[in-house]
Amino acid sequence: MEFELLAGGACQARAGVLHTTRGSVPTPLFMPVGTVGSVKGVAPAELRRLGARIILGNTYHLMLRPGAELIHELGGLHRFIGWRGPMLTDSGGFQVFSLGHLRSVDDGGVSFRSHIDGSPLRLTPERAVEVQEALGSDILMAFDEPPPADSDRAAAAEATARTHHWAQRCLRAHSGTGSLFPICQGGMHPDLRRDSAAFVADLGADGNAIGGLGLGESKQITWQMLEASIERLPGNRPRYVMGIGAPEDLLNGVARGADMFDCVLPTRLGRNGAVFTHDGKLNLRNASLARRDGPIERGCDCECCAEFSLAYLHHLFHCEELLGYRLASIHNLRFLVRLMEQARAAILRGGFSAFHDEFNSRYRPPDEGVRSEQRKRWRAARARWSRAAGILPASAHPEIVDG
Amino acid sequence: MEFELLAGGACQARAGVLHTTRGSVPTPLFMPVGTVGSVKGVAPAELRRLGARIILGNTYHLMLRPGAELIHELGGLHRFIGWRGPMLTDSGGFQVFSLGHLRSVDDGGVSFRSHIDGSPLRLTPERAVEVQEALGSDILMAFDEPPPADSDRAAAAEATARTHHWAQRCLRAHSGTGSLFPICQGGMHPDLRRDSAAFVADLGADGNAIGGLGLGESKQITWQMLEASIERLPGNRPRYVMGIGAPEDLLNGVARGADMFDCVLPTRLGRNGAVFTHDGKLNLRNASLARRDGPIERGCDCECCAEFSLAYLHHLFHCEELLGYRLASIHNLRFLVRLMEQARAAILRGGFSAFHDEFNSRYRPPDEGVRSEQRKRWRAARARWSRAAGILPASAHPEIVDG
Repeated sequence: MEFELLAGGACQARAGVLHTTRGSVPTPLFMPVGTVGSVKGVAPAELRRLGARIILGNTYHLMLRPGAELIHELGGLHRFIGWRGPMLTDSGGFQVFSLGHLRSVDDGGVSFRSHIDGSPLRLTPERAVEVQEALGSDILMAFDEPPPADSDRAAAAEATARTHHWAQRCLRAHSGTGSLFPICQGGMHPDLRRDSAAFVADLGADGNAIGGLGLGESKQITWQMLEASIERLPGNRPRYVMGIGAPEDLLNGVARGADMFDCVLPTRLGRNGAVFTHDGKLNLRNASLARRDGPIERGCDCECCAEFSLAYLHHLFHCEELLGYRLASIHNLRFLVRLMEQARAAILRGGFSAFHDEFNSRYRPPDEGVRSEQRKRWRAARARWSRAAGILPASAHPEIVDG
Repeated sequence: MEFELLAGGACQARAGVLHTTRGSVPTPLFMPVGTVGSVKGVAPAELRRLGARIILGNTYHLMLRPGAELIHELGGLHRFIGWRGPMLTDSGGFQVFSLGHLRSVDDGGVSFRSHIDGSPLRLTPERAVEVQEALGSDILMAFDEPPPADSDRAAAAEATARTHHWAQRCLRAHSGTGSLFPICQGGMHPDLRRDSAAFVADLGADGNAIGGLGLGESKQITWQMLEASIERLPGNRPRYVMGIGAPEDLLNGVARGADMFDCVLPTRLGRNGAVFTHDGKLNLRNASLARRDGPIERGCDCECCAEFSLAYLHHLFHCEELLGYRLASIHNLRFLVRLMEQARAAILRGGFSAFHDEFNSRYRPPDEGVRSEQRKRWRAARARWSRAAGILPASAHPEIVDG
């Protein structure tokens, strides 16, 4: 894999091309998440048509169902799910650490129980690489331990040291097909972030990732941590910021020199009837849309806006019709993919800053109070599930179920 | 509307073309059912690609949600749902009579309660036409009373007489946009069937429908009743057999001179993971498919078989992924649409009988015992729902929910 930098500096918005054996992909880019081998509600042909060039698969989910060896036997993940472009796979670290008391960590790896049937399983750095190689991944991720956002310095340092050690083991275990990206952590401690990025940079990998962000910390902290990480990462390698997906966050990441993003947000929001517009999010269940002719957003070039009115989408959600989940997801994915295309074009013509300001002048992000309320509800729900029978309900845990 | 008969006689397999203001459609044909303005799980563009030329909308469902007047205000049903070809709308008769004790019939019409919120509603022949005209239907159906399959002679005769009277009122109420098809009934009594068909034939409509079949009677009775109806219907007008959708039943209908069919079966089965093959139905949840490479059926030209393996489909159903419901529905719809294309080609070359025999020599329909068990379960479930709080659960009543 090779990364070709076309415009922009080390810690500012930049445009490039990621050359993989399965094709070249322009950056900055957003990767739709195909959790269990399907970007929820959206077919591969639709992903191609909406401009997605690389998608993500989840090691944790795929090793549970249908199993990495079965996928390997059937010709690999690309063939199994019908996606011909490059694919990135995560390492399962984020999911198994989300399992709460269902998992126990030691320096060798993590023992955990399946959220589906409670069966005992174990992931080690070596096994995480083996699974991703069996899947036939183009970009593999090192197995890491993301410390919770509220970790104190000692806990964050311990998780980060383990992440470093595991990254070395992953790189040793990696046989050479695809590129393996190590992940820097450091919790919400700027010096740990800087040290972690420096350590990861020294590993000399094809690309590097920044993990452990967007886990409940304020946005101000997110950007402070991102900056602390990025300043120590090599400028000539792609930087992948994991799990970030709100439109305003993508642009804030790009502005600081990030190249790659993934998130379940556009599909999860879509299934819940929330769609992105340049003015902010819009809830399709809103009764005021029942008679609204015209698309979600005029000028949007997605397949949903080309054909269907807000009134129809409102009706589909009101009736819980499957088509509604799909159309809203397609719109949201196209919104993010296009946002990255537009950001790239702006960078190449030297106008990213103006583009970013223009976006921010219209877009109303949900306020911090709403975010914080939502995080509290999620944390409380997660705690309840973790205390419950020892098996997490498959339908009830957004982070785990969606990736 | 005009019907052009190209080959075949009055009571035998025949091929033709239905000329409507929204395009010409070859017959025999199968119409996918877009219950509440969406063929469940399948987008209009996919319907076009799988060869559907005309689809069906449900008056009962659309008058409840979002309301016929709202759809009219937004430019009609075609525009609302993004379907440019011809559409047939049913009259709501079948659904309101399926509501059990939630409805009461008088000679003027039917008073009933919504299965969604229990609100009181009324359908009359005039209102059923008004709703269908507001939707902008190309083929409207007369409001009818389908007698249950186990109706005695007197009850069947009463429902049939009312159906005749209502058909006359519908034709008087019809303003002339689109074509209105009257429906013959007669229960499971051959002489009533013959008399009803003769009455309906005398109305001189552009086409005629045969209703009240496939309601739990044995297949032998179904074909006996179909023959009794068809022999009195004019040969130069299309005959639409309502609610029939199993592959073997479509061909048995075509063999007797039927031209048009509709059914929720392909999409309902698809959502449940059952798919048509030339050997019979296949359950995608079957564990034996977990490692099966290759499509549902070799040689199938549907979008699902072109891209995806049985192993992947099995996995999607195992994980309850939305994409699985869509792919299985597309396969089943294409199977039926193609079956009608093949039947038509066979009729035009004078070889329908051989084609039919060849199909039957491979296809294993579910045996009568299984069918009868299923019918019993449905009837018991319906009785329970009808006894319950006065509101039918939207998710639990297959006939009403699916159309």
